[in-house]
Amino acid sequence: MIKGSVGTVETHHYTHPSPLLLESGETLSSVTIAYETYGSLNRDNGNAILLCHALSGDAHVAGYHKGEKRAGWWDSVVGPGKAFDTDRYFIICSNVIGGCKGSTGPSSMSPATGKPYGITFPVITVRDMVNAQKLLIDYLGIRRLYAVAGGSMGGMQVLQWTVNYPEMVKKAIVIAATGYSTPQQIAFNEVGRYAIISDPGWNGGNYYDRKSYDADSEGPSRGLSIARMVGHITYLSNESMHEKFGRALQGKDRIGFDFSTDFAVESYLHHQGDTFTKRFDANSYLYITKAIDYFDLTRDGSLAEGLRPAAAAFLVIAITSDWLYPPYQSQEIVTALAANNREVRYSEIRSNYGHDAFLLEAGQLNYIMGRFLSHSVVADVMTPDIPTIEEGTTIAVTARRMVTQGVNHLPVLSLDGHLVGIVTSWDIAKAVASNYLWLDEIMSRDVITAAPGEPIEDAAKRMEENAISALPVVNGNGNVIGLITSEAISNLIGRAGQ
Amino acid sequence: MIKGSVGTVETHHYTHPSPLLLESGETLSSVTIAYETYGSLNRDNGNAILLCHALSGDAHVAGYHKGEKRAGWWDSVVGPGKAFDTDRYFIICSNVIGGCKGSTGPSSMSPATGKPYGITFPVITVRDMVNAQKLLIDYLGIRRLYAVAGGSMGGMQVLQWTVNYPEMVKKAIVIAATGYSTPQQIAFNEVGRYAIISDPGWNGGNYYDRKSYDADSEGPSRGLSIARMVGHITYLSNESMHEKFGRALQGKDRIGFDFSTDFAVESYLHHQGDTFTKRFDANSYLYITKAIDYFDLTRDGSLAEGLRPAAAAFLVIAITSDWLYPPYQSQEIVTALAANNREVRYSEIRSNYGHDAFLLEAGQLNYIMGRFLSHSVVADVMTPDIPTIEEGTTIAVTARRMVTQGVNHLPVLSLDGHLVGIVTSWDIAKAVASNYLWLDEIMSRDVITAAPGEPIEDAAKRMEENAISALPVVNGNGNVIGLITSEAISNLIGRAGQ
Repeated sequence: MIKGSVGTVETHHYTHPSPLLLESGETLSSVTIAYETYGSLNRDNGNAILLCHALSGDAHVAGYHKGEKRAGWWDSVVGPGKAFDTDRYFIICSNVIGGCKGSTGPSSMSPATGKPYGITFPVITVRDMVNAQKLLIDYLGIRRLYAVAGGSMGGMQVLQWTVNYPEMVKKAIVIAATGYSTPQQIAFNEVGRYAIISDPGWNGGNYYDRKSYDADSEGPSRGLSIARMVGHITYLSNESMHEKFGRALQGKDRIGFDFSTDFAVESYLHHQGDTFTKRFDANSYLYITKAIDYFDLTRDGSLAEGLRPAAAAFLVIAITSDWLYPPYQSQEIVTALAANNREVRYSEIRSNYGHDAFLLEAGQLNYIMGRFLSHSVVADVMTPDIPTIEEGTTIAVTARRMVTQGVNHLPVLSLDGHLVGIVTSWDIAKAVASNYLWLDEIMSRDVITAAPGEPIEDAAKRMEENAISALPVVNGNGNVIGLITSEAISNLIGRAGQ
Repeated sequence: MIKGSVGTVETHHYTHPSPLLLESGETLSSVTIAYETYGSLNRDNGNAILLCHALSGDAHVAGYHKGEKRAGWWDSVVGPGKAFDTDRYFIICSNVIGGCKGSTGPSSMSPATGKPYGITFPVITVRDMVNAQKLLIDYLGIRRLYAVAGGSMGGMQVLQWTVNYPEMVKKAIVIAATGYSTPQQIAFNEVGRYAIISDPGWNGGNYYDRKSYDADSEGPSRGLSIARMVGHITYLSNESMHEKFGRALQGKDRIGFDFSTDFAVESYLHHQGDTFTKRFDANSYLYITKAIDYFDLTRDGSLAEGLRPAAAAFLVIAITSDWLYPPYQSQEIVTALAANNREVRYSEIRSNYGHDAFLLEAGQLNYIMGRFLSHSVVADVMTPDIPTIEEGTTIAVTARRMVTQGVNHLPVLSLDGHLVGIVTSWDIAKAVASNYLWLDEIMSRDVITAAPGEPIEDAAKRMEENAISALPVVNGNGNVIGLITSEAISNLIGRAGQ
């Protein structure tokens, strides 16, 4: 097994026993969902993470299919010790409906006709994709996802999850995405669709008997290739194309003064277009881009209104050089969530790669997402409603309180409930040794505390520096609301520092 | 006649009597250039301005063709009182070779076969376009262009002019252009070309008998439409598309859940694509985009090296929201020119319109370009090598000098050549009336002067304020190097303040 890899994996298929009602009002009579999982569910099924793929992705997010050398599309961040740590989390990824990688889509057989749907397949939306994923999550016995994450169209699905199933999503990671498709994004998609349907090989969507996945066939491979070429330009930044190609010629010493390929960038684009036609269905391209165009979570023109149902803790990541889904669109999501008082963190990945950076910048992604997933705040792991003791009492009463409550730390409170000190079983021992009688004589008055909203790492560091094993958690009013212990941190967070 | 318009105009054609040698080594046996001119050449043919069009432009830059309601493509800045002021300048615009608007291109008849060239037309470059324009300029009897100006591919032609014919270009205006095409620009062009040649209607470039300009024909209208749609997206900014379309639906109350047009932006794009196929030749699109791709003025990787021959005074204009030819590319031109100690001014047009702003932001363009064209410096219009007189001489000698030199102003110089005063024929008259004999008794010692580098407007204003009709031009060493007169200003500059 390759280090840090989930190793050899395979795709499973779940066929839902009943029809799926779509947003359009149509129903999909039979729904099969292709999916992969890595890692194990823990006892309470609380460690499941759903990853959502982008336009041309699939369920194969990490590891290797038997006999293949190419790893899954997000292998760089999924596996042991990576952000989506398969030693800790149960990772799920499924192919979207409408796709062509095992889930029901236009290339699937229509039960009604026994032939491929083609464009008789109903138009689907990102919400329909998410509803289909929900069927899979239910089937897997998961009540609540620890996290849902994805980039580009994957990020749209994440947002849709948090809005439609708010109680099911604890953490949400939205990368290089938007709360609604803009006219420029729609325009690029429409050019691609028009190229496909203008290709005579498309034949009104009926080309499956002509082996559309083969570029040598008579399917709409030229149209799909054009669509992919346009798309590919939008995934790269001007800078990265400069660095990668400049004005380098392709197999020539000088420009050819003809219409053969002159520049390396042209050759690269054609290669991207050609290989895409061998792995992707043109009709799926139509359906999925349409779903992207339809994506719009605003409500009455307000994204804050549209995101109001969301209850997850969010990490929103933008890419500095992404001009297809520019940072301002991520910032709009952040602003909308903040307007609803949702917990949200925003990070920008510094990258020249453009939109594609969400697949390429593994270092930054592992760091940012890893911290977000494992880093909880003190309030997440503190023990609430802890026993305390009032100042002015005797050591005997204090010791009895410890023993009956089964704790070896007691915060000492003033009569009006404020923290004035702390006493430990070790202090009791010293008191006994020195014949002290009153709590005031032994308690520590310089109490190191934690705030409920601070990252656990900060609290852990303070404990370590001061060689103490617990901190009272004090809110803004000076009241003790809980206790955070090193034991709880190590149990709940595990290997926090990666 | 519409106010500020050049009125009704027509396109002329010049056919050059001999073949044109192209950069590829091929020759174009017969070259016809379609062109329009407005305004009149002045006595020394020194007021001609050549305007260069972009990819889909033509010779019809301003005014109206008989019976048509649509003005020329840059009518907003060409005409009486506009930046390209037809009351002062002789404006020339010609269709590029390779085009389809009257100049020789792939849709022209090949003299060899008597049929349209199609793709037997030789591949041309921006330099070839400029060489063809040079034939026209020679034919028009113009030795030196007062200015050459253009945006986008027009800006490339301007740069090429300054490099290839440096002695022929006094001022150069380069808008929203670049010193070399980048891989992203090439990539978008290649997608367009691929869409055209993938269209079965292209038929290897032989479709002219099928009426390609008609969208209902069997020509490559779908491919050309796709090319134009892609191009059009790159001409607009994300912001302007937002403002113009948002997510507005086209003739619907709700999204259609089908593949008909849902959004206004889609409808708009299709309209742009469709109308383009009715006015533009697909083969010309191939040739002109190829010329753009080939454009690269760098030499040994250095734009400064490539621009070294240029001698013009430059105005380089970028558009803040232009992502196809971003401001950094204009700034590279400025840096390269500055490295060669060339006179260069840089302006940024604040606009949300994207690349298309060079056609739309008439207010800013008229202001910036108008100032650049009309604002000459004193050195441009001063009379050099003027007669002077030494101090200490007699009025009689002074008067004789005036009469023999035919001037009525004489700067008075000290023995070491510095300006100490000025004497006019009026002073002579006063001396005669008062019986003075010596120059020192009558000359004005508080001489108002002009600096060679100051704007003419400033000198003119000073003359007006002091009610004098000429100023000695004094350099940094205090030496008189010429004289600027109100007569010269009014003759050469005309209505400078617009």
